[in-house]
Amino acid sequence: MPIRSARPVVMTALATKTQPVEDPLFAPLLAGDRRALARAITLVESTREDHRERADALLTALLPHTGRSVRLGITGVPGVGKSTFIERFGLHLIEAGHKVAVLAIDPSSKRTGGSILGDKTRMELLSRQANAFIRPSPAGTTLGGVARRTREAMLLVEAAGHDVAIVETVGVGQSETAVADMVDMFILLLPPSGGDDLQGIKKGVVELADLLVVNKADGDLARAAQRSASDYLNALRLLYPVSAAWMPEVRTCSAVEGRGIAEVWDAVGRYRAAQGEAGIARRRGVQARAWLWNEIGETLMAALRRHPEVKRQLAALEHDVETGALAPSAAARRILGTFLGR
Amino acid sequence: MPIRSARPVVMTALATKTQPVEDPLFAPLLAGDRRALARAITLVESTREDHRERADALLTALLPHTGRSVRLGITGVPGVGKSTFIERFGLHLIEAGHKVAVLAIDPSSKRTGGSILGDKTRMELLSRQANAFIRPSPAGTTLGGVARRTREAMLLVEAAGHDVAIVETVGVGQSETAVADMVDMFILLLPPSGGDDLQGIKKGVVELADLLVVNKADGDLARAAQRSASDYLNALRLLYPVSAAWMPEVRTCSAVEGRGIAEVWDAVGRYRAAQGEAGIARRRGVQARAWLWNEIGETLMAALRRHPEVKRQLAALEHDVETGALAPSAAARRILGTFLGR
Repeated sequence: MPIRSARPVVMTALATKTQPVEDPLFAPLLAGDRRALARAITLVESTREDHRERADALLTALLPHTGRSVRLGITGVPGVGKSTFIERFGLHLIEAGHKVAVLAIDPSSKRTGGSILGDKTRMELLSRQANAFIRPSPAGTTLGGVARRTREAMLLVEAAGHDVAIVETVGVGQSETAVADMVDMFILLLPPSGGDDLQGIKKGVVELADLLVVNKADGDLARAAQRSASDYLNALRLLYPVSAAWMPEVRTCSAVEGRGIAEVWDAVGRYRAAQGEAGIARRRGVQARAWLWNEIGETLMAALRRHPEVKRQLAALEHDVETGALAPSAAARRILGTFLGR
Repeated sequence: MPIRSARPVVMTALATKTQPVEDPLFAPLLAGDRRALARAITLVESTREDHRERADALLTALLPHTGRSVRLGITGVPGVGKSTFIERFGLHLIEAGHKVAVLAIDPSSKRTGGSILGDKTRMELLSRQANAFIRPSPAGTTLGGVARRTREAMLLVEAAGHDVAIVETVGVGQSETAVADMVDMFILLLPPSGGDDLQGIKKGVVELADLLVVNKADGDLARAAQRSASDYLNALRLLYPVSAAWMPEVRTCSAVEGRGIAEVWDAVGRYRAAQGEAGIARRRGVQARAWLWNEIGETLMAALRRHPEVKRQLAALEHDVETGALAPSAAARRILGTFLGR
C-alpha cells in the first residue's frame, strides 16, 4: 500500500532539515485514531528514502509516548491453534479493559499471497473489537527488514494507546529470536505431544520461552495435554539452568473452549512481578541498544551488497571461498577494499 | 609473541603485489615442522597489517592442503574434567595412529594471565607426544577476533598433517556457537547431575551438541552418571526434534580411569558415517561462506567503530537510544551517514 498523499512527506522532509514541524499523523495517532495508526505503520514499512526520513522523524516525536504496553511474543507451529488462542486471549484482555494490538512477523509472507499470518479474517471476533488492532506481517525478503518494521509498528501501537502488544510468529525459521529480542516475555504454544518429541519446533525455540502453554487440553486430548505439560516441565528443569529471576512455567489451555486463557494472563502477571519494573526497563534498554547495532549492521551490509563493484566481484569470491580456493579472510579484505575505496 | 624476523614479511608483502613468492614457512609447515607451525599460527594471530597480508597469502597457498582432519568441538563447564578427558582422548587417538591438534577458544583469556585454557602443562602427557600439538587460546578482546584466528589455526594444523583437530572451549559465554560453526561435530561434556538441572551450562549449548558425554562415571558417582545419561537422553528426545541425519547420543565415561574414551571415538565414527562425506563437505561449505560474511561484517563494523567522527557521536547516540529519546533507526542513519561520508 503506497502512502496516499505526497504533501505531508514533503513537509516533514523539509522539517527535519530546518525546524520540527509536527507530522499530520502525530496528533490523530496519539488520540488513538485507527486510520492514522494504519497509515503510520504503512509509512514505517516503506523503503522509499523520503518515507524513511519522515518515519524516523515521526517515530522520534512519538518515542516519549511509547513503552507503556506489556510486550508479548507468541509462537507455535501451524496447526497448534495459535489464531484461536490469540483471539480468545485478546478478547479476554479487552473484557478486562485492555487495548490490544496484534502484530505478526513472517518473513516468508507475501502481503498479496494470503499468508497465514496476514489473514485478518482468521481472528474475526477480535478484529471487530474497537479496542483491538490487528496487523498482518509486513512483506519483506529479509528477516532483519521485517523485524525492524515490526519493532517500529510496536512503538506506533503503543503511542496509539494499546497497553498489550502481541507479536506473533510461526515456529519455524529464525523469526522467533527476532521476536524474543523485541518483547518482554515470550510464550510458546505447543500441541499435546505423543511423549516422544516436539514435532516441528525448531531447535532453540524452547529456550527462548518464558512460558510454555500446551493447547488443545480438551476432549480426547485433555489427558495427553496434562501429561505433556508435566513431561515438558521435567525436561525443562533438567536441561535448563534455573535463572535467578524466572523459571519458565508450563500450563495447559483449551483455546477452543476458552479454558486456561485467564490463567495465561495470570502467568504473565507473575512473570512481570518477578522481573520488576527495573528488570523490564533494563531488558528494554539492552534491546534498544542491540536494535541500534542491528540497524547499523543491516544497513551497512545492505549498502555493501548494493555497491556495484562489490556486486561484480562477490559471486566469484564466494565461490572461491566455498570451494576452498581462497581464504575467507583474504576474500573479505578484497571486498572491503573495494567497498571502502581503498 | 612477535614475529621474529622481518625479512619474510617484506618478501611476501612484495610477493602478493607482484607475483607469488613461496613463504619460507610454507614448505616446513607442510612437512609437519612444529616450529614452522607455531610461527605460522603466531602470524595469523597478529593484527599488524603487513602480517595480515602475509597470513592471507600463506593461508591461500596452504588451502589445497587443508580439510583432511576430523574437526571436533568440545565444551564443558570448568570442573567437568575437560582437560583430563581431552588428554586421555588424544592419547587414545595417537595410539591408534592419529596426529592430534588441540586448539582452544576462550575470549576471556589473557595469554600472560595463565588462562585455564592457556596452560599447556595441564595436558602434560599429551603435550609430550610428537604427534600432538597443543595451542592455547589466542589473546583477544572480541570473540569474533579470537574465533577467526582459531579457524585459521585449524587450517594450519591440517596443512601440517594433523588428522584430528580438537577445538576446545569453556561452556560459558557465546564461544560455543563460534566453535560449533567451525567443526564437523560438537561434543558436550557434562558432570553427573543431581537430577535437577544442568548446573552452569548456558542456555542453547545443549542444542549445539551432537554428542553428550557424562564424565566422572567412576567410584561413588558411577550410578549417578548412568542415571544422568538416561535422564538427558529422555529430555533430549522430548525437547528436540529428530533430525533426519543424526539424533544426539548420550554416553558416560571416566576420563580419570580411562573408561568410555574409545567409545566416544566410536560415536564420532558413527556420526561421520551418518553424515557421509557429502554431508560434511556441505556443512563445511556453508561454514566457509558464513565465515566470509562474518569476516566482512566484523571488519566493516570494526572500521565503523574506529572512524574518528563516528566515535565522537556514538556515546551520545547510544545513550539517546537506550533512554528512548531517539529512534534506533534514526540514530543508525546518522551514524552511517557519518561513516560513509554522506
